[in-house]
Amino acid sequence: MLNGLESGALTSEEVLAELQKAPVEDLGFAKLDSHRELRQGLPEAIYAEGKTPEQVLQIAERLLEVTTSPVLATRCQPETIALLRERWPEAEISDRARLVCLRSAARADLGLVTVVCAGTSDLPVAEEASGVCRALGAAVHSITDVGVAGVHRLLAVQDEFAASDVVIVVAGMEGALASLVGGLVAAPVIAVPTSVGYGASFGGLAALLAMLNSCSAGITVTNIDNGFGAAIAAVKILRKWAR
Amino acid sequence: MLNGLESGALTSEEVLAELQKAPVEDLGFAKLDSHRELRQGLPEAIYAEGKTPEQVLQIAERLLEVTTSPVLATRCQPETIALLRERWPEAEISDRARLVCLRSAARADLGLVTVVCAGTSDLPVAEEASGVCRALGAAVHSITDVGVAGVHRLLAVQDEFAASDVVIVVAGMEGALASLVGGLVAAPVIAVPTSVGYGASFGGLAALLAMLNSCSAGITVTNIDNGFGAAIAAVKILRKWAR
Amino acid sequence: MLNGLESGALTSEEVLAELQKAPVEDLGFAKLDSHRELRQGLPEAIYAEGKTPEQVLQIAERLLEVTTSPVLATRCQPETIALLRERWPEAEISDRARLVCLRSAARADLGLVTVVCAGTSDLPVAEEASGVCRALGAAVHSITDVGVAGVHRLLAVQDEFAASDVVIVVAGMEGALASLVGGLVAAPVIAVPTSVGYGASFGGLAALLAMLNSCSAGITVTNIDNGFGAAIAAVKILRKWAR
Amino acid sequence: MLNGLESGALTSEEVLAELQKAPVEDLGFAKLDSHRELRQGLPEAIYAEGKTPEQVLQIAERLLEVTTSPVLATRCQPETIALLRERWPEAEISDRARLVCLRSAARADLGLVTVVCAGTSDLPVAEEASGVCRALGAAVHSITDVGVAGVHRLLAVQDEFAASDVVIVVAGMEGALASLVGGLVAAPVIAVPTSVGYGASFGGLAALLAMLNSCSAGITVTNIDNGFGAAIAAVKILRKWAR
Amino acid sequence: MLNGLESGALTSEEVLAELQKAPVEDLGFAKLDSHRELRQGLPEAIYAEGKTPEQVLQIAERLLEVTTSPVLATRCQPETIALLRERWPEAEISDRARLVCLRSAARADLGLVTVVCAGTSDLPVAEEASGVCRALGAAVHSITDVGVAGVHRLLAVQDEFAASDVVIVVAGMEGALASLVGGLVAAPVIAVPTSVGYGASFGGLAALLAMLNSCSAGITVTNIDNGFGAAIAAVKILRKWAR
Amino acid sequence: MLNGLESGALTSEEVLAELQKAPVEDLGFAKLDSHRELRQGLPEAIYAEGKTPEQVLQIAERLLEVTTSPVLATRCQPETIALLRERWPEAEISDRARLVCLRSAARADLGLVTVVCAGTSDLPVAEEASGVCRALGAAVHSITDVGVAGVHRLLAVQDEFAASDVVIVVAGMEGALASLVGGLVAAPVIAVPTSVGYGASFGGLAALLAMLNSCSAGITVTNIDNGFGAAIAAVKILRKWAR
Amino acid sequence: MLNGLESGALTSEEVLAELQKAPVEDLGFAKLDSHRELRQGLPEAIYAEGKTPEQVLQIAERLLEVTTSPVLATRCQPETIALLRERWPEAEISDRARLVCLRSAARADLGLVTVVCAGTSDLPVAEEASGVCRALGAAVHSITDVGVAGVHRLLAVQDEFAASDVVIVVAGMEGALASLVGGLVAAPVIAVPTSVGYGASFGGLAALLAMLNSCSAGITVTNIDNGFGAAIAAVKILRKWAR
Amino acid sequence: MLNGLESGALTSEEVLAELQKAPVEDLGFAKLDSHRELRQGLPEAIYAEGKTPEQVLQIAERLLEVTTSPVLATRCQPETIALLRERWPEAEISDRARLVCLRSAARADLGLVTVVCAGTSDLPVAEEASGVCRALGAAVHSITDVGVAGVHRLLAVQDEFAASDVVIVVAGMEGALASLVGGLVAAPVIAVPTSVGYGASFGGLAALLAMLNSCSAGITVTNIDNGFGAAIAAVKILRKWAR
Repeated sequence: MLNGLESGALTSEEVLAELQKAPVEDLGFAKLDSHRELRQGLPEAIYAEGKTPEQVLQIAERLLEVTTSPVLATRCQPETIALLRERWPEAEISDRARLVCLRSAARADLGLVTVVCAGTSDLPVAEEASGVCRALGAAVHSITDVGVAGVHRLLAVQDEFAASDVVIVVAGMEGALASLVGGLVAAPVIAVPTSVGYGASFGGLAALLAMLNSCSAGITVTNIDNGFGAAIAAVKILRKWAR
Repeated sequence: MLNGLESGALTSEEVLAELQKAPVEDLGFAKLDSHRELRQGLPEAIYAEGKTPEQVLQIAERLLEVTTSPVLATRCQPETIALLRERWPEAEISDRARLVCLRSAARADLGLVTVVCAGTSDLPVAEEASGVCRALGAAVHSITDVGVAGVHRLLAVQDEFAASDVVIVVAGMEGALASLVGGLVAAPVIAVPTSVGYGASFGGLAALLAMLNSCSAGITVTNIDNGFGAAIAAVKILRKWAR
Repeated sequence: MLNGLESGALTSEEVLAELQKAPVEDLGFAKLDSHRELRQGLPEAIYAEGKTPEQVLQIAERLLEVTTSPVLATRCQPETIALLRERWPEAEISDRARLVCLRSAARADLGLVTVVCAGTSDLPVAEEASGVCRALGAAVHSITDVGVAGVHRLLAVQDEFAASDVVIVVAGMEGALASLVGGLVAAPVIAVPTSVGYGASFGGLAALLAMLNSCSAGITVTNIDNGFGAAIAAVKILRKWAR
Repeated sequence: MLNGLESGALTSEEVLAELQKAPVEDLGFAKLDSHRELRQGLPEAIYAEGKTPEQVLQIAERLLEVTTSPVLATRCQPETIALLRERWPEAEISDRARLVCLRSAARADLGLVTVVCAGTSDLPVAEEASGVCRALGAAVHSITDVGVAGVHRLLAVQDEFAASDVVIVVAGMEGALASLVGGLVAAPVIAVPTSVGYGASFGGLAALLAMLNSCSAGITVTNIDNGFGAAIAAVKILRKWAR
Repeated sequence: MLNGLESGALTSEEVLAELQKAPVEDLGFAKLDSHRELRQGLPEAIYAEGKTPEQVLQIAERLLEVTTSPVLATRCQPETIALLRERWPEAEISDRARLVCLRSAARADLGLVTVVCAGTSDLPVAEEASGVCRALGAAVHSITDVGVAGVHRLLAVQDEFAASDVVIVVAGMEGALASLVGGLVAAPVIAVPTSVGYGASFGGLAALLAMLNSCSAGITVTNIDNGFGAAIAAVKILRKWAR
Repeated sequence: MLNGLESGALTSEEVLAELQKAPVEDLGFAKLDSHRELRQGLPEAIYAEGKTPEQVLQIAERLLEVTTSPVLATRCQPETIALLRERWPEAEISDRARLVCLRSAARADLGLVTVVCAGTSDLPVAEEASGVCRALGAAVHSITDVGVAGVHRLLAVQDEFAASDVVIVVAGMEGALASLVGGLVAAPVIAVPTSVGYGASFGGLAALLAMLNSCSAGITVTNIDNGFGAAIAAVKILRKWAR
Repeated sequence: MLNGLESGALTSEEVLAELQKAPVEDLGFAKLDSHRELRQGLPEAIYAEGKTPEQVLQIAERLLEVTTSPVLATRCQPETIALLRERWPEAEISDRARLVCLRSAARADLGLVTVVCAGTSDLPVAEEASGVCRALGAAVHSITDVGVAGVHRLLAVQDEFAASDVVIVVAGMEGALASLVGGLVAAPVIAVPTSVGYGASFGGLAALLAMLNSCSAGITVTNIDNGFGAAIAAVKILRKWAR
Repeated sequence: MLNGLESGALTSEEVLAELQKAPVEDLGFAKLDSHRELRQGLPEAIYAEGKTPEQVLQIAERLLEVTTSPVLATRCQPETIALLRERWPEAEISDRARLVCLRSAARADLGLVTVVCAGTSDLPVAEEASGVCRALGAAVHSITDVGVAGVHRLLAVQDEFAASDVVIVVAGMEGALASLVGGLVAAPVIAVPTSVGYGASFGGLAALLAMLNSCSAGITVTNIDNGFGAAIAAVKILRKWAR
């Protein structure tokens, strides 16, 4: 069942109910074991959308108890963040990204992820990506507000890309930043379209299509606003490299 | 009726039939007159899609006879181009753009339009724009194959933009070139999405949405593959300025 | 970073945070300088969507301090408007357009923009366009409520178009007004689809598609509800002409 | 089964096969009878798309034999038209509309339908509407090539609308003609979007959405390219009125 | 300007502002006059969406004063209805349809409109259609809750259709009722898709597409939820017939 | 009219009003009778969306009085559930599924339906399906949180499928679980896409399309979030088998 | 690998190549075995789209050799059908459905499937469904050309539904037949939308959406034109019942 | 200009014309140089779609002459393949993938890419991915025909994934294979949707959406049918790791 928590669909109280009544050994450790090699270094992530603060708290307590993995809660409401902050004052929290990191990876030398962000409205998604990368042991370099309309700003920071092992590009509206960055860096580029925009952006569709059609070969794309997924993809790359 | 020819929907033989039976004075000159001020300098354009070569030829002969405007035929099939070339060997013809200019504007000093083109596949649309601009009295500077993935190539020609009075950006796939150019030039920028691409480009939809959502303020957009429309828009701007 | 403010994506507090901690010389003046020629006469625009009133206030104070450009705030909430009005009682404000002009261009002779509006529901977008044009030095003539269903009303004001240097057409629902105006005026026509409508208007998609497919050649189109973008496009045209 | 022929889905040889083997009394006359009042004056229409010329011929022969209704074949291929023309030299045929009228209504005084057509490319659909109206007993007045971009041409023929009992507006591209006509005439207006256009017309979707969102109240709309359906609707209106 | 009120886009206070400052003779009577023949019998309709109750009240007062047409307010909020009810206790009001009829047509003998409604959720749209028809002088017969899933219920009321001059079919979900009714009645059928449904109804798109593709020839369609438009179309038909 | 209640469109108070004034014999029993064979064992279902708690209560009282069928209320608001619970404390209620079963089928031996659910967010839809199946006499086995990403969990419970007579698969996001289950079980598989997801899930469209395109032959699909419909389909299958 | 043949994606020669070089025991019998219970009675189906006639022939020979299941080839080109007919003159072949049945099930008493078809254009899909059902041991009763526009024809055959164990409804255009049949029969109803139609049918999308939104509860839906899938679903239902 | 060749839009003869007239030093080596670090190991790829065989030949000759990079031609027509095969008999060619590798990377030890393919129809895209990976120095392991409907086949080859450094999943129809593989392997997973399918697959849209919404975290996605892009992404990952 813990395994199940890492999937993206986690709204109901069912999980909690079962957690409460289940003895620890029913929590699915055998199943976890069979995935041990696969999961090594990946987080136990609580998708907090649709859970009460108390539910997230209880699940988090269990996960910290029964695993040694990094433990995260994503898409937390402010009340949830407040409760977790009170319980674990030392947790690393990004209010903007609605992300709470309760336990990070032991190592911090996986490699360097650069997270490039087109506009300030894209920052919540960018910070979700950054925070998850950091919690899993990657160093993160953030470059903010380098929209395509001001290409000189991007070129000015071109050297900052040089050392990157993976680059995550976060952009809404026309999503053109991914193509531009893809033409400037040798590292793998993961593009995250965001729902930032209005009118014919159709909730991020414009950015998504633009990124999928990028003329910079080799860019891959995640779902709209999926900073978490981009981070997991980046860490999977780093883990191959950093072993 | 001649007025009617400039609209985009011109497939059938009806126009020809009426042309043939109509005495010249029924060709609508009074109507033309009432639009004289408006139309000054704009072309009589024959949309050749769906017309036989002979029909285009006959309409063109009439238009050359009864007007003093520039006369163009757009979206011509190879057979149509061959017939027109045989009849008017001096016509300016772009096979790739499927454009035949039978009479250009008397003046050639309207101003300078720069037509920037993302990839070589976009050239037919770009050349339709260029050819129409030239036929109507504008100077045209063409910049080709400066995709977003190689931004240095675009920056290398940045000075060539400086003298432009209007810039037309033609791009398919992710259409990001429009945003990039929009951030580099002071002149009005008209963006033309093309149907170049495959898969999730959905026939030019990706480029269209990207251009509409451009983070470079002030970019305006035409229909997909509408190089003709972009040229008319550019010439309308120049005519305000060049009077 | 100020440059960055002109892009369309500006929601988060990051901008403010950096503004607060940054010494003035870090505000990016060198970058601004490199764009001086390009930006001449264009505004510093604060996209207020998603910012707190205090954040908009602080950014505005800085921009007024460190630039000589016109300074605008677009898409302001009522509380933001109230705060800005209290601080700068002399500001030109359109509540309906959610637009605050804190500093307008010194000159007011760029030329004449006519803003034509199909229905009264389209007025917020039309006024955003008008207000931005005025703030940047253009004279504006507004024609309101001249829907296609009552074409005689439009023809009655046809002479008012004659003197226009640029025409902006703002229309929702079926967006047909753009085609109609495009057939009546010699000046460049910029069409702004709005999200006004219901059912199969699909949030402005019907008007957007209609304008892109206009049979009046030379019309160009902005994103849905993007009165600001249309105004920038119009001013770019005027600046070419008025220099 | 004959009743079934009037539905829009008629491709396969099944109909023919059953016709051939069925004695006349199995042809469904009892069913026809039960619909007699309803069907009075409406045609037996053979949708020829996907049928061989011989099949259409045989079905037509049967229908002429067993009914007294008008008999039409729509969407005929050239070979089908040739065969029917050879068999019934007196048939009224529109090659462009792919329409063959083998027997028209006895009466011709149902009323006057005006069919207005935006561009010459829309003529096949307009002529399908006209031809079906005429075959069912209506007088038809056709007005062609009065696009929205040249509104003066439309106003010049405004008086021709005055006597109309029903107006059918046929237009592709942005479909704005329907709104314009709807504001000018008192008669019921039926709008037929066509697939004429390219790029963002998306096969007639742009015109369809525009017509559905018309600001001229009371316009009703048919499927894309459905001139036949518009004619049936018009004749249903006339029959109420002309009884 | 009053003319303008009948178009569908009427949100802002502009109309009111101009009404308040305008002397009566500026209210546009000359324009109204030029449309007198056209508008005869059609209503002055206030689209109340987005207007304050006071604004609707004031506009209504003016319209009652300066015209002799029927006067309606559509899409009224409860507060608006309450205010109008208080001011004109004799007004005919449908809370469910959000429709207020302040003055109906003098005649009530235009003919008979049958309004058929698939489910109870479609009743607000059906009642808007019924109410507008009645206000303009038509008799209305309502048939409710005769969904396609229970075809016997529809057949049981088939005779009620016999006397209809026009039939309006209102249906959401799969919109199949229109096809069914279209096969049963000789009168013109106007189909109104509604936004009733969930999931893959996509806000009424499923019903809209189904009605446009109806295999019952001659059905015409309005925008989603547009009971008002269907009623105007029906009355236009009746007026041809009833003159 | 009661029959009508089982259709999906039931928002307004009309039903109630008619129920209140109608004598029992007007409630439509004759119609019910004519459907007796068809409806045997199917429920009277009140679609509570848009009804007040009191209306649902009154309709339920009548249905319990005049029928012997199972009686359900679906999509109930919390207030409605509270009121029904107070009135019928013995009712079987699922708060999460918003489902109230006021009277279940007499028999409980129809067969076994397995309801498989991808993630905990899909549970409300899954429980609607389970609850309706149970109320109509089927045994239900629920398998929860067996997403495709953890296929071993699904295989571990494969034996639980063996005894199933019908399998209902409920999944949002990419909806892949349906294909997987379809390859593992011999029983009929009904797939229910849910609106669980974000970004490019487009309200369940991604899951719906995936299920329709399943490479596991023989899977059939319901509307998005339509657990009720899947249960009815399952029970119809069981009733054929269990008779 | 044989198992793999039943999935829908089978174009390339790879399958053949591997078949030719593989010794029989590598053909995957162990895998087949593990699925024996599941697959019992289901066919080995060759999806012939994109295969050469010779490839289909060779695969068919192998399947007949190594299995005892029914063996079918679907979506065959005419040349493929000719070749198979020559090789196996006794094969049951539907040219229209492009279906070849090389070996049918031993039993023919699974139960009765009624396949109802809206129009003659839908017959190829209907016959694919019928043919597959028959090959797998079901009796099939076909009802053709009972469109919604002629509901009396459908009611006239209502008794023919009574004995059905499963009903498959095949319809294009507006797809309303599914709802109608769903309200008339007690048996499970599987709806197959077809791509029959034009304009706003969008390749079957209109029918698909209509069927998904059916107000007849319990209808389930397959992909557009997927007669094969509907037959498999029907047979899975019958096998539960007929065991 | 050579740099430009690697972008996806390469149809016209322009490239060739310039190549022919350009002295070698105008071929853009300086530009190449500035990208040397970036491009190291990436191919010069000729997108052959829309080029004549002779043009592809000439471009290829030049590229082999002036670079030391791997040289590929993608999406070649059969005539183009024939010509290239004749000129370079030693070229590695995949007819099915329409891919010609004229010069591969010197090294072949970059790492191991596993290319998993759902059905045989997806093989052309899978082989494009495989071929490009191999040409750039990666070892490739191909796993074919492991659709989701037969999960046991996939599990049987699970060990083959263990050694993979990157996994590319190629699938059309419902695209579920990506989620399944993502849950089984620790390596980075790149998903390529294909246009394989019919009906509601909408040209690959169903698979694209499914992959973007995968519940297996960390999967990234390319454009539909973009095997080339997936290979470039995989090689970029390997190069980070293999340096």
